Amino acid sequence: MRTFDVVVVGAGPGGEVAAGYLAEAGLSVAVVEADKVGGECSFYACIPSKALLRPGELLAQARRVPGVAEAVTGGLDVAAVLRRRDELIGHLDDAGQVPWLEERGIALIRGRGRLAGERRVAITAEGRDEEVVEAGRAVILAGGTRATIPPIPGLAEAKPWTNREAVTAQEIPESLVIIGAGVVGSEMSQAYTALGSRVTLVGNVLPKEEDFAGEQVVASLREQGAEVREGVRAVGVTRTDKGVVVTLSDGASVSASEVLIAAGRTPQTSGLGLETVGVTSVAVDERMRIPGTEWLYAIGDLNGRALFTHMAKYQGRIAAAEILGEPMAEEHLADGAGSPRVIFTEPQVASVGHSTASAAAANVRVRVVDIPTDGNAGGSFAGGNGGTARFLVDEDRGVLAGVTITGSEIADFLHAATIAIVGEVPVRRLRHAVPSFPTRSEIWLKFFDAMGV
Amino acid sequence: MRTFDVVVVGAGPGGEVAAGYLAEAGLSVAVVEADKVGGECSFYACIPSKALLRPGELLAQARRVPGVAEAVTGGLDVAAVLRRRDELIGHLDDAGQVPWLEERGIALIRGRGRLAGERRVAITAEGRDEEVVEAGRAVILAGGTRATIPPIPGLAEAKPWTNREAVTAQEIPESLVIIGAGVVGSEMSQAYTALGSRVTLVGNVLPKEEDFAGEQVVASLREQGAEVREGVRAVGVTRTDKGVVVTLSDGASVSASEVLIAAGRTPQTSGLGLETVGVTSVAVDERMRIPGTEWLYAIGDLNGRALFTHMAKYQGRIAAAEILGEPMAEEHLADGAGSPRVIFTEPQVASVGHSTASAAAANVRVRVVDIPTDGNAGGSFAGGNGGTARFLVDEDRGVLAGVTITGSEIADFLHAATIAIVGEVPVRRLRHAVPSFPTRSEIWLKFFDAMGV
Repeated sequence: MRTFDVVVVGAGPGGEVAAGYLAEAGLSVAVVEADKVGGECSFYACIPSKALLRPGELLAQARRVPGVAEAVTGGLDVAAVLRRRDELIGHLDDAGQVPWLEERGIALIRGRGRLAGERRVAITAEGRDEEVVEAGRAVILAGGTRATIPPIPGLAEAKPWTNREAVTAQEIPESLVIIGAGVVGSEMSQAYTALGSRVTLVGNVLPKEEDFAGEQVVASLREQGAEVREGVRAVGVTRTDKGVVVTLSDGASVSASEVLIAAGRTPQTSGLGLETVGVTSVAVDERMRIPGTEWLYAIGDLNGRALFTHMAKYQGRIAAAEILGEPMAEEHLADGAGSPRVIFTEPQVASVGHSTASAAAANVRVRVVDIPTDGNAGGSFAGGNGGTARFLVDEDRGVLAGVTITGSEIADFLHAATIAIVGEVPVRRLRHAVPSFPTRSEIWLKFFDAMGV
Repeated sequence: MRTFDVVVVGAGPGGEVAAGYLAEAGLSVAVVEADKVGGECSFYACIPSKALLRPGELLAQARRVPGVAEAVTGGLDVAAVLRRRDELIGHLDDAGQVPWLEERGIALIRGRGRLAGERRVAITAEGRDEEVVEAGRAVILAGGTRATIPPIPGLAEAKPWTNREAVTAQEIPESLVIIGAGVVGSEMSQAYTALGSRVTLVGNVLPKEEDFAGEQVVASLREQGAEVREGVRAVGVTRTDKGVVVTLSDGASVSASEVLIAAGRTPQTSGLGLETVGVTSVAVDERMRIPGTEWLYAIGDLNGRALFTHMAKYQGRIAAAEILGEPMAEEHLADGAGSPRVIFTEPQVASVGHSTASAAAANVRVRVVDIPTDGNAGGSFAGGNGGTARFLVDEDRGVLAGVTITGSEIADFLHAATIAIVGEVPVRRLRHAVPSFPTRSEIWLKFFDAMGV
């Protein structure tokens, strides 16, 4: 039986990062992967979705700035966008990702991994005998999630697109109905509208974010020509010769060339062999360890804490540090539900920590300060299209409890807020961190003025 | 004699901010201004320069992103850029700025102000008798700087452009020689090159910033077609029928349609009447007060601490707080020479706190970590063109001592670093502030990895 110090089940971003740190520290590490090294993010989520979204965003911005607008005479070159997307996802071949593991001496075992008793992982692959490997120190489960297919009559039979088909499509359908308006549904509505599809989005838009974020995204999608059906849900799906028909809870129906289901994610726990080690859940403690075990970790989307690539990588780092005996887990607000997050719609939505609703639910007394994202000198130049920066101040502690920013190209504004929240920098001290003129970061200055600090 | 609680001499950004806070707190305030309400920044510096720079930057970015590049068929529409610039500077009329003062009940006194004894300001204006006003509590000097005209033979006689003519020009000269390669010289080289002028820049580029910043800007300017003459200086200027000829210290000469002198700034202290109150300098303490007085403040570029609009506004706030008896001055690294600053060249250069050289000069032991600005997933989409993020870690204190970032559109990346530095957040804690994927803010993640935290 092959033995490794650590066996990582799943080679997505979290698994790769954990394996990398462990191997660089001198441990022997195996990574088990049934699909692609790089995971959902590299091939079917973050990377291709941003490849589809970014060009439309930039073109819209160019059209808003005098002097540049006149230089733009054409529309988005869809074929060029898809070609660049294909390059960025390595044409769905993970060959480009494997050397990163090899350089670190990490063993890649292709196949489906499952627990087979304490510190044992069994790997099955077509045409090969099952192999059982031993993990001397730890097993890290990092198998991620797959698209949820809810029990809507006819949906499964209609073979809907999931995120995978949506972000890898080689042709843009004439029309697309999207069921579910969380991150995937909203981003794909934005992307396909920009790419020329007639989109109908069904569901309440970005329900986990501040109300104004969803409202601004809805208004923008409508302005761009998409149809948004809030307050209803899909109750039936039928595939016809011409495409699909989706029946809604208000009795209406929507016909389209294609249907995308974007109704959340399901953790890939079935067949993981949890029962062989007496465990019933992949929920973890702050060290990413499954309670009741000394050797079993779960990181990334699988554990349900925060379904974001960056948090999967962060959790991979934490698990590796624990296994190496150099624990680094620290409690802070920008973890779990408060994790930093960016939605690449138009406007973009970036948030960290509490929303107004989650602060209320957690009994955190907050002062709410709203500032127009483009309401400063920097906003005069950027080619933005409005948006709101909401600062929530914990009134008892005098620190930020949450920040949500909407606007054009504000993804990289978030990190300032994340540092302020994780660093627990008092607002009175933050006041001395002066944003440069004329940048849009002067939203912070207006925030200080509104706070009277 | 009219009496006010506070008399502010100079209505630039610093003076306006100080006056605003004081008036909102209920004090009677007069602002004395000889030129335009809004100051150099609004009409002759930040605002018009960014109006000239931003379109070229955005167009270059659009041309680097597949799918958008194909939609761009024309060049920059120079007339449209100039029209927009003219709008943003109110066609050099400050009428749009005056209501901000009026709404706050601030008296605007047009004319040149000078001290005329303790708590007295004399105002002279053409066609009007001199008026002396009294300041019950304080006088704030905020008269700013003007372009330095160094004693280069023939320069003054050649009537060179200063920043004022450069940023308000109604026609783009066929060729332009720029003497001095600090912020103004570098930004104007970038702007005029993009606007179609044949630019020659004379001087060492961005000497106060990290070496790599200047080197990258030089390489980029050259690639865009500008000529950069480092290691020499201008020793003579002659205006001819066809334009100007600038002689260089290496014996070469450069002919151009126009010459811009960008050799630093001179504080406007002459004629300020300092001698009437027994003061010889406008240097201030950390409360922005001129030592030896209880009532005299100097803020903004005039005091020489940090020649940036945002720091002028910050100093205005500090002076107002002092006068209101609610002192807020705090010492921190992102003040004075370490103030946050952004240079809007291509690449942009943003920095805060120490540079490698200034840390060495201050005997701060730093670890230097360089990360490629576009070397992450976010960089694959942005349409950037390279750049470097340098993190300096104070090895004794475990906090950041300085950050310099170069790259396309990185101006708003700076505020995260400014908060980390002003908040003195330990690097080990910063590690828990997770940058979102896929944003270019992952420069921070690579920094943590390089630090091994």
